[in-house]
Amino acid sequence: MLKRLLGFLRRLSGLRRISVAILGATGLVGQRFVKLLSSHPFFEIKVLTASERSAGKKYKEAAHWLLGGDPPEPASEMIVQETRVEALSDVELVFSSLPSEAALKVEPMLAEQGFKIVSTASAFRMDPLVPMIIPEVNPSHVSMIERQREEKHWKGFLVAKSNCTTMPLVISLKPLLDAFGLRRVVTVSLQALSGAGYPGVQSLDIVDNVIPFIKGEEEKLQAETVKILGEPFRPLNIPVLASVNRVPTLDGHLLHVFAELEKDFEPEEVKRVLREFKPLPQRMGLYSAPDPVIQVRDEEDRPQPRLDRDYKGGMGVVVGRVGKCNSLTVKYAVLSHNTVRGAAGGSILVAELLREMRLV
Amino acid sequence: MLKRLLGFLRRLSGLRRISVAILGATGLVGQRFVKLLSSHPFFEIKVLTASERSAGKKYKEAAHWLLGGDPPEPASEMIVQETRVEALSDVELVFSSLPSEAALKVEPMLAEQGFKIVSTASAFRMDPLVPMIIPEVNPSHVSMIERQREEKHWKGFLVAKSNCTTMPLVISLKPLLDAFGLRRVVTVSLQALSGAGYPGVQSLDIVDNVIPFIKGEEEKLQAETVKILGEPFRPLNIPVLASVNRVPTLDGHLLHVFAELEKDFEPEEVKRVLREFKPLPQRMGLYSAPDPVIQVRDEEDRPQPRLDRDYKGGMGVVVGRVGKCNSLTVKYAVLSHNTVRGAAGGSILVAELLREMRLV
Amino acid sequence: MLKRLLGFLRRLSGLRRISVAILGATGLVGQRFVKLLSSHPFFEIKVLTASERSAGKKYKEAAHWLLGGDPPEPASEMIVQETRVEALSDVELVFSSLPSEAALKVEPMLAEQGFKIVSTASAFRMDPLVPMIIPEVNPSHVSMIERQREEKHWKGFLVAKSNCTTMPLVISLKPLLDAFGLRRVVTVSLQALSGAGYPGVQSLDIVDNVIPFIKGEEEKLQAETVKILGEPFRPLNIPVLASVNRVPTLDGHLLHVFAELEKDFEPEEVKRVLREFKPLPQRMGLYSAPDPVIQVRDEEDRPQPRLDRDYKGGMGVVVGRVGKCNSLTVKYAVLSHNTVRGAAGGSILVAELLREMRLV
Amino acid sequence: MLKRLLGFLRRLSGLRRISVAILGATGLVGQRFVKLLSSHPFFEIKVLTASERSAGKKYKEAAHWLLGGDPPEPASEMIVQETRVEALSDVELVFSSLPSEAALKVEPMLAEQGFKIVSTASAFRMDPLVPMIIPEVNPSHVSMIERQREEKHWKGFLVAKSNCTTMPLVISLKPLLDAFGLRRVVTVSLQALSGAGYPGVQSLDIVDNVIPFIKGEEEKLQAETVKILGEPFRPLNIPVLASVNRVPTLDGHLLHVFAELEKDFEPEEVKRVLREFKPLPQRMGLYSAPDPVIQVRDEEDRPQPRLDRDYKGGMGVVVGRVGKCNSLTVKYAVLSHNTVRGAAGGSILVAELLREMRLV
Repeated sequence: MLKRLLGFLRRLSGLRRISVAILGATGLVGQRFVKLLSSHPFFEIKVLTASERSAGKKYKEAAHWLLGGDPPEPASEMIVQETRVEALSDVELVFSSLPSEAALKVEPMLAEQGFKIVSTASAFRMDPLVPMIIPEVNPSHVSMIERQREEKHWKGFLVAKSNCTTMPLVISLKPLLDAFGLRRVVTVSLQALSGAGYPGVQSLDIVDNVIPFIKGEEEKLQAETVKILGEPFRPLNIPVLASVNRVPTLDGHLLHVFAELEKDFEPEEVKRVLREFKPLPQRMGLYSAPDPVIQVRDEEDRPQPRLDRDYKGGMGVVVGRVGKCNSLTVKYAVLSHNTVRGAAGGSILVAELLREMRLV
Repeated sequence: MLKRLLGFLRRLSGLRRISVAILGATGLVGQRFVKLLSSHPFFEIKVLTASERSAGKKYKEAAHWLLGGDPPEPASEMIVQETRVEALSDVELVFSSLPSEAALKVEPMLAEQGFKIVSTASAFRMDPLVPMIIPEVNPSHVSMIERQREEKHWKGFLVAKSNCTTMPLVISLKPLLDAFGLRRVVTVSLQALSGAGYPGVQSLDIVDNVIPFIKGEEEKLQAETVKILGEPFRPLNIPVLASVNRVPTLDGHLLHVFAELEKDFEPEEVKRVLREFKPLPQRMGLYSAPDPVIQVRDEEDRPQPRLDRDYKGGMGVVVGRVGKCNSLTVKYAVLSHNTVRGAAGGSILVAELLREMRLV
Repeated sequence: MLKRLLGFLRRLSGLRRISVAILGATGLVGQRFVKLLSSHPFFEIKVLTASERSAGKKYKEAAHWLLGGDPPEPASEMIVQETRVEALSDVELVFSSLPSEAALKVEPMLAEQGFKIVSTASAFRMDPLVPMIIPEVNPSHVSMIERQREEKHWKGFLVAKSNCTTMPLVISLKPLLDAFGLRRVVTVSLQALSGAGYPGVQSLDIVDNVIPFIKGEEEKLQAETVKILGEPFRPLNIPVLASVNRVPTLDGHLLHVFAELEKDFEPEEVKRVLREFKPLPQRMGLYSAPDPVIQVRDEEDRPQPRLDRDYKGGMGVVVGRVGKCNSLTVKYAVLSHNTVRGAAGGSILVAELLREMRLV
Repeated sequence: MLKRLLGFLRRLSGLRRISVAILGATGLVGQRFVKLLSSHPFFEIKVLTASERSAGKKYKEAAHWLLGGDPPEPASEMIVQETRVEALSDVELVFSSLPSEAALKVEPMLAEQGFKIVSTASAFRMDPLVPMIIPEVNPSHVSMIERQREEKHWKGFLVAKSNCTTMPLVISLKPLLDAFGLRRVVTVSLQALSGAGYPGVQSLDIVDNVIPFIKGEEEKLQAETVKILGEPFRPLNIPVLASVNRVPTLDGHLLHVFAELEKDFEPEEVKRVLREFKPLPQRMGLYSAPDPVIQVRDEEDRPQPRLDRDYKGGMGVVVGRVGKCNSLTVKYAVLSHNTVRGAAGGSILVAELLREMRLV
């Protein structure tokens, strides 16, 4: 009792940071977690895990560090653990960037044992009992956790973030859905190389080239969009048609969107609605919440991956080229950083929301 | 009379090649003309023109040759002329790859003086009296020339080819229009750097980047598609929604297409219809006509610019990723070489059609 | 007298910032100046100049901003002036990133009128009376200013920084020269696109390509190296053989160096000497001086432009691949950020040195 | 006896093609072999081998075809075999593009059993009994085969081609060695992605980047150059200092060379000597021998990989930027296609030489 009180006070006073583990810490998304959490005020990296091959090495030796310079201290000197329960004893919150196959096995096992997990893996995103949360869009889906615990008999819980490409699509659609209603979405993406992780795409496949295909991505875009935009346990009932491409950019997923609305509109209205979008995380002032979350640019040639992916440290979403196709169809382009907002950063924002709600 | 008879016999026997000029020969499209016409059986380069700055120099010195190695003989040694009527005295057919502004002034003047012009410029494409011809799609539009001459009081004539991005879109839509009917098209393009000509896109703007905008291109895609797919003087009445991108590939424009048909369909039917498409130029056996003009690939990750742009020497069109979105909407990706099929090669095919029809 | 005293006190107390102008502020190097000076403790941007075309516009409208997002406040809202004396009335220090031709005319005129100029232009670098200063290498060359003023009858003065490629070469050679002596240098560079400014290199010239030539660059590398490594007015007498390349990287010039020393050496000794290099600016603690200025990496595949160009905010120099070719020849690779350390940042460091020496 | 006579007559008359196998046929170099040999007048592909994983599949399904379009007929329909002796029963000549480790085991075993092997692998290049042959440079090394067979007790034999980077270096050095003598070579390479094979270099490692290291490459450049330029069994005794880079080009290795000669020279003399170089294969008129083998360009910015790698179908070598550093040191840049001249094509030329010498 005293301990809980103390913990509560500590949280309030911000004196104590929550101990976290990063699973799959040597991968590309894991590296983003390490970078973002190394200076985070509420979370403290206690454990870094990776595959057997990396276990036992210092993080700086185990990770093929791709973010420039060297991994930040003190993570760089931490010894990487194998991804096993034993490694996680003192951990209060688990960020999982495991490959899907490993996530399928490890995550439910950890949730059962009482761990609280925020996962970037696609393994359980479409599980009807797992909320897929973008804090700006569907924070109310946090309520699904309760039923999840009951039905799955888990002491902990599992929350997913969406696919990195779904993220900017859904964040830009949400204010349109609220203001104008949505009938149908057609989208084509141009996705960065880092979206495929490391090793990922071979240079011989992508230099002077574009690949009009990413395995499973179009299906994810369609299914995740309606799950997130819907009510808990009740997806939105609209068609989402998608074609995807891999292009030779390092970071930043760009989508062209044709959205059929339920009401007539003016482009300036759409821009205003996007600019004024101030959802829960921004109103709460969550630490990693970009404000405004959507930047709307008026230039005719933006957003561009290299110029706009770092808006608000990579946590924001940039919209441009808003135009009217016909009385009901608006078109625009939207971009966000796929490994920050679309993966590690997006997950950290979920964790900040959970913390604010006293769930971690 | 005798002369005409002789000419006729020569043409029949193939002994004589038609003398042609290339206007704007030092530009990127001009270079493709030079390359393709240097070994053409029916056309012979007699005159190469360019701006004042290049005039008087050998072609190999005037052109910043971008196609590898050196310009072909004998063009490489020809003296570049300034783009003026005087330079064209012995020329029977003019291929114009002038910049739009120059084309606006020069082309009508030449047509008035009796020259027969096939132009890659956008200047007159939307002129209601100028046929914009893709031989596989609308060869009947050649008939517009008669009224053009009358109403414009031209002794010669002017025929345009379409925008390089319109080309693969329209060639792939034509058999679908014929077989299933068309209600609506949504398309997003990924366009190569050579589409912007030379100098064109700065490397600092495009390395590790994508630009979601090309000036005037979306409007062209919309307007040209319906003009070409329609009857002479009567555009097809369907909406074409387009968003365009410049991507860091050298050659090859890729489009994702969502086409709403008038009839239900099976993907395999669509593939069959595309594969069996054998329009006039292929039936006539025109020299540059690729056969089949459309290659349909079954792999899930094709067409790709670098791997597929050279199909049939860059004159063919490659379709892939054919899929069914819903009962009426088919989606697919389509690619063609923008400076061969989409510009110089496409114009040469038009000229071969005109020659076969005894118009040049 | 009182005023000078006050100025002195202000400088000491850091209350007053020196008013500076950036000439050529819309160019790529000008943009780096704007970015670096927008948060500089000692310098305050008062005037931004550019060509006639940009004059009268807000900076954010005049500059094709290439550094991501938007130009920083308050520069973004400043009105760009034409590059003329009248615009500079309240300015104490001038950073010139003018194109060479403009610099040739403008800089001496300004120096004559009393302006203190630090220039990134190549125009006067090889002028025997103009010191070309890399603060870590030849701070004593500041003494050349006195004779410069006398002989040129200038009220102000002109100091140059070196070519962006010379910078990492010379910084890495200096400690070797001091410790081992130098007989001969052979170097081959791989230079980034931003080194050519904007517009600079066309994408069609460099995608899937390398250009083994940069106009005047090899000559500069040779001449500047010996000028900087020598005494004031007395260049070092050693041969410097150079071949240069433009490669498709955005930022960061990489050089391979084969240096023939005067003494036998062990690679570990060379590494130690480089690591322990702590020249004047680092000892003085100049604001922009990276410490250590040289990072020596032990991995076999570093430095790499994308991973290492931002070492110490782009002000440091990264060396790797130190090896012994024979008893006297050491080889290594060295990298620095060409528009930060190699241009704007390098010039600001010069200005900080001049300020510390009470010359501005 | 009759059979040999018949064979002789067939060879003379060119009626019969020699049956060849390609080991490692699905790899990138294997693909070049398939492409080049599919239309070769003297060699006929009979067997394609690859790893266990590919065995049993049609070639077009087993190979991730990277050369554009589809693999040529009839190879595309051939069934890939596992790399075992049993698969090679009817084969007269073996082209091996096995990975080094596999080559180490397989090649001697095949040579022992009587197979004649031309190998692109590095496994045995530095074996003192294995000739490493560039037909233009050291055709006399073919004579080493006799001693090889004796000492190794092989019924067949093994001939290597050099590393792909050594190739242009040595071809350009040979005429200089003959005309001026050679004292010392310093070289820095910029090597294409295809040199690393497939999968090879990850896109995340090389987009907007350069890697100043390739495992083992500098050592190979040094050792191979002196072995090839020397007499059989007696390497040339000069130092070769090399630094290497991987750059984001698809094909074409570029080298900057500083060569110290034994005699004074004029750049024009060097150019003449290179241009007039007409070694044995060119004098013999071997089918794949480019003539002239060396193209010397006078432009200040050539050779460039994308513009010059296809000189003579990728079999030639392009030199440019010839200049004089001092009385004895000439500098130049040299380029050749690394998977054609530098690998498959270079090996085929070796085989043509062996055929001409009646060794296959």
